[in-house]
Amino acid sequence: MPSDPPVFPEAEFRARIDRLQCAMAAEDIDALLLTMPADIFYVSGFLTRFWESPARPWFVVVPVCGAPKAVIPSIGAAQMGQSWIADIRTWPAPDPTDDGITLLAEAIAEMVPARGTFATPMGLETHIRMPLRDLHRMIDRLAPRRLVDGTAAVQRVREIKSEAEIDKLRSICTITGMAFAELAGQSLQDRPLAAVFAEFQALLLRAGADWVSYVAGAAGPDGYADVIAPAGAAPLAPGDVLMLDAGAVKDGYFSDFDRNFFLGPPKDGVRHVQEALWQATEDALRELRPGMRACDAHRVLAEGLRRWGVRPCAGRLGHGLGITLTEWPSFTPLDTTVLRENMVLTLEPSAHVTEATFLVHEENIVLRADGPELLSPRAPRHGFLVGA
Amino acid sequence: MPSDPPVFPEAEFRARIDRLQCAMAAEDIDALLLTMPADIFYVSGFLTRFWESPARPWFVVVPVCGAPKAVIPSIGAAQMGQSWIADIRTWPAPDPTDDGITLLAEAIAEMVPARGTFATPMGLETHIRMPLRDLHRMIDRLAPRRLVDGTAAVQRVREIKSEAEIDKLRSICTITGMAFAELAGQSLQDRPLAAVFAEFQALLLRAGADWVSYVAGAAGPDGYADVIAPAGAAPLAPGDVLMLDAGAVKDGYFSDFDRNFFLGPPKDGVRHVQEALWQATEDALRELRPGMRACDAHRVLAEGLRRWGVRPCAGRLGHGLGITLTEWPSFTPLDTTVLRENMVLTLEPSAHVTEATFLVHEENIVLRADGPELLSPRAPRHGFLVGA
Repeated sequence: MPSDPPVFPEAEFRARIDRLQCAMAAEDIDALLLTMPADIFYVSGFLTRFWESPARPWFVVVPVCGAPKAVIPSIGAAQMGQSWIADIRTWPAPDPTDDGITLLAEAIAEMVPARGTFATPMGLETHIRMPLRDLHRMIDRLAPRRLVDGTAAVQRVREIKSEAEIDKLRSICTITGMAFAELAGQSLQDRPLAAVFAEFQALLLRAGADWVSYVAGAAGPDGYADVIAPAGAAPLAPGDVLMLDAGAVKDGYFSDFDRNFFLGPPKDGVRHVQEALWQATEDALRELRPGMRACDAHRVLAEGLRRWGVRPCAGRLGHGLGITLTEWPSFTPLDTTVLRENMVLTLEPSAHVTEATFLVHEENIVLRADGPELLSPRAPRHGFLVGA
Repeated sequence: MPSDPPVFPEAEFRARIDRLQCAMAAEDIDALLLTMPADIFYVSGFLTRFWESPARPWFVVVPVCGAPKAVIPSIGAAQMGQSWIADIRTWPAPDPTDDGITLLAEAIAEMVPARGTFATPMGLETHIRMPLRDLHRMIDRLAPRRLVDGTAAVQRVREIKSEAEIDKLRSICTITGMAFAELAGQSLQDRPLAAVFAEFQALLLRAGADWVSYVAGAAGPDGYADVIAPAGAAPLAPGDVLMLDAGAVKDGYFSDFDRNFFLGPPKDGVRHVQEALWQATEDALRELRPGMRACDAHRVLAEGLRRWGVRPCAGRLGHGLGITLTEWPSFTPLDTTVLRENMVLTLEPSAHVTEATFLVHEENIVLRADGPELLSPRAPRHGFLVGA
C-alpha cells in the first residue's frame, strides 16, 4: 500500500527547527528534549493515535545547530522513517531494564558539551512524558550537563502558526462547522444526550475529521452547570438549550468551538445571555490586535458581557489552539502573554444565566495584523433553533 | 438535566482505596499523589474527555489512613462533586502565579508527617502529569518529607480487576465485536483506508461506544509493515489483507483487539500465518494460568507460532488492559510480572509474512483460576472474508 505524502513538506519542518534553534541560541540552550506528542509532531510530522498507549516513552532531541535525532521504540521506526528526520535510533520498548535511557543519554551527550545545558518544557501547560525515575537516571548520566526550562523556547515558536498550519486549522474548523450544521437539521427532542453525542461524533467523521478527540456538552432550560461531564441517558426536552463543544482532528490539527442548540424558543434570560455572548464576541472580533496581551482579550470580552448586563463566568474566556485541543495563552486577568500576528486563538465568552447555570459561546480565529480572521463559520446570532 | 448514576457504587471505590492503603502501608508510604487520568478515574470515578486539554493539572491524594482529597481546577468542581470524594479543593486554573501547588502541598502536608514519605508512580508506563517546575516547587515546599516511587503500590492494585470492572470490559468488548461484524458485512474493495477508518469509528459509536480513543490499521497483499500510522487515501484492492485495531471506550473502560479482513482469498503465505496466529492464540487460551509470568505468556505464544513454522515479531505479544488502551505487564522475554487471577490481558501474537511484513491477531481475556475467559468474541479462524 503506497504511503500518503507527509502532512507538510520538509521545508515547513526545517523552518520550525530554524526558529526553535534561534530561540535556543538566545537562551544558551545546547539541546532541547521533546517528549510530549504535540511537540514531537511539531518538529517531525510524526502523527499517530498510538500515544493513547502509555506503555512507551518517545523522544526527539533538537540541537542548537544541526539536525534533530529521534530516539523511539522500534514499533515506530516505519512511521518515523516516513518523516524528514534522518537520524532515528530505536530500542525494543517496553524494556524494564533500560527503556531507551542509554540511547537517549548518548544522543544528548553528542549534542551538549560537558558544561552545557539541555532543556525540556517545565512550565505551565507542559509535563514530561517519561517515567520520573528514568528522567532522574538520565540527568545523573548526563551530569555535569544541566537540565533547564525550555518552555519559552517551545511556546514562543509554536504559538505563531505558519500559513500551512492555518490552512490545516481552517480545514478542520470547516469540517466541524459542517457537522454542526448537519446536526442542526435534525430533531433533537426526546433523544438522550448520549445518543446525540454519538451522532455528532459520527457526523464529524463523515464530514472529514480523521478522529474526534473531544466532544463535550450539556443541556438544560436555564443553561448548564457542568460542561466537561460525559453525556448521560436523560432525553432532551422542549425548552432546553443544548451546548455541544467539538475537538475534532484533521492531519493533527484541532478545532475547538461550540454551538448552542435551542429546542424551541428559549426563556428570556437564556435569550439575553445568548445575545450578550454573541455581541461580546463581535466586540473581540473588531478590537483584538497584535500587541495586546491575553489579559486584554479577557478584558474586552468581560467588558462586552457586562455592557449587556450579564455576569462573566470566573474561568478563562479563550485560549490558544493548534496541535492540542487547547494551547496557551489563557484569556484571564493574570496572563500577560503578548498576542502576536498569526496566533490561532479561541474566543470563548461564558456568562451566568442563574447563580448555578451559564451559557458559553466559542469561535476560532487567527489573529492578523489588522485583527481577527474567523476560522470557524460564525455562529448564528440566536444559536440553532431545532426540534421545536 | 438529572445526572446519571456514577459508573460504580461507592463501595467499589472504597474497596479500591482499601487495597491501595494496604499496599501503601506495606511500603511505608504515608500518602499517594495521583496525577494521571487513569489513576484519578480509578480512585474517584471522575470521567471526562477534558484530559485532552493539557492546560491544567489535576491531583488526587490518597492517605494511608482516611479519605482521599481532590485538588483540582474549579472547572471540574461540579463533575468531581458527583463523585464519592467529599474533600474537594479547587483553584481557578490555569494560574501562572500558583497553579494549585500551594493547595496541593497543604493537602499532602496534612497527611504526611514531617519525616514521612509521599509517593507517586515513577516507573515503567507512568509519567507525572504536572509541570516539572511545579513538581520541584512542591517537593521543596514539603521537605523534609521525601517523595518516593509509588509505581508498585498502584500497579499491583489496579492490575487485578473487580467483577464490576470485568463487566465493563466485557461490555465494551461486545460493542467492539459488533462493530467489527457490521464492517465485515460491507464491501471494502476500492474504498480508501481513511474512509474505512471513519466508517469503522462511526460503527463503534453506533454500537454503543462512548468514544473511540484509538483506531489503527493497515493493509497489503503480504500483510503490513506499519500498524500505528494514520490511514491514507489509497484504496483497498483485491487480495489485500486489512487489519483494523480498535480502542473503544464505554464508561471509561477500553477494548483493545484487532481483526483481519481478507479482500478475496489470501496468498498461501498470508493464509498460513493467519492459521498460525489463530492456533497460537488457542494454545494460550488453553495454557495460561495464574502464577505464570508475563515472560511465560510470551513463551507460550512464541513457541506456538514457531510450531507452525512462522517467525514471531520482535515486539511484545500481549499486555494488560483496563482503563487505558494498554496497561502493564508486557508479554516480552524480559517482563517477569506474575500473572494473577482477574488480570485482564490481551493476547496479541504477530508473525512475519515476509522480512518486511507481518500479520497480527488479538483477543482480550480475563485470567481466571482455571485459565483465560474470553472477553472479545473469538475471531473467525480464517479472518473475515469480505468484498471478494
